[in-house]
Amino acid sequence: MDWISTIGYLAASLTTLSFLPQAFKVITTRNTQGISGLMYVMFMAGLVMWLIYGVLIEDAAVSMANFLTLVFALPILVMKCRKG
Amino acid sequence: MDWISTIGYLAASLTTLSFLPQAFKVITTRNTQGISGLMYVMFMAGLVMWLIYGVLIEDAAVSMANFLTLVFALPILVMKCRKG
Repeated sequence: MDWISTIGYLAASLTTLSFLPQAFKVITTRNTQGISGLMYVMFMAGLVMWLIYGVLIEDAAVSMANFLTLVFALPILVMKCRKG
Repeated sequence: MDWISTIGYLAASLTTLSFLPQAFKVITTRNTQGISGLMYVMFMAGLVMWLIYGVLIEDAAVSMANFLTLVFALPILVMKCRKG
C-alpha cells in the first residue's frame, strides 16, 4: 500500500472511529442535550447513500467505513429519539 | 453525470450538510451538554486527512466535501471547548 492510500485509510479510520466516543457518551450518561437529532437523521441517510454507492462502485473501503459509521451512529440517534 | 455518481454526490451532500443543524444548534443555544469533544477532535483530524488525501489524488469532490464539513464542524468544537 502506497503512502497516499495510507493517508486515505487513516482518514477513514479517524472519521469512522470518532463516533465511538459520542456513542459511548450518550449510552453511559443518557444525556442527549445539545445533540441535534436532525444532524443524525441527515448524516445517517447520507451514510446509507455512501454504503449503496460503495457497493455499486465495488469499493470495499467505502462500503465498510460507512457501514461501521452507521453502526456507531445508530445508538446516538436512537437515544436522541428516546430522550429528546 | 451517470446515476451512480448522482448517488455519490447526494451522499456527500447529506453527510456534509448534516453538520449545519448541529452547528446552528450549538451557536444559538450555546448548549454543548451531551456532545463528545473527543468525537469532534478525532472527526476533524480525520477531515484534515481526507482533505490532504483529496488534494493528493486530485479529487475535487473529496477535497471540497471535506473542506466544507471542516468549516461546519469547527464552530461545534470551538463552542465545546469554550462551554465544556
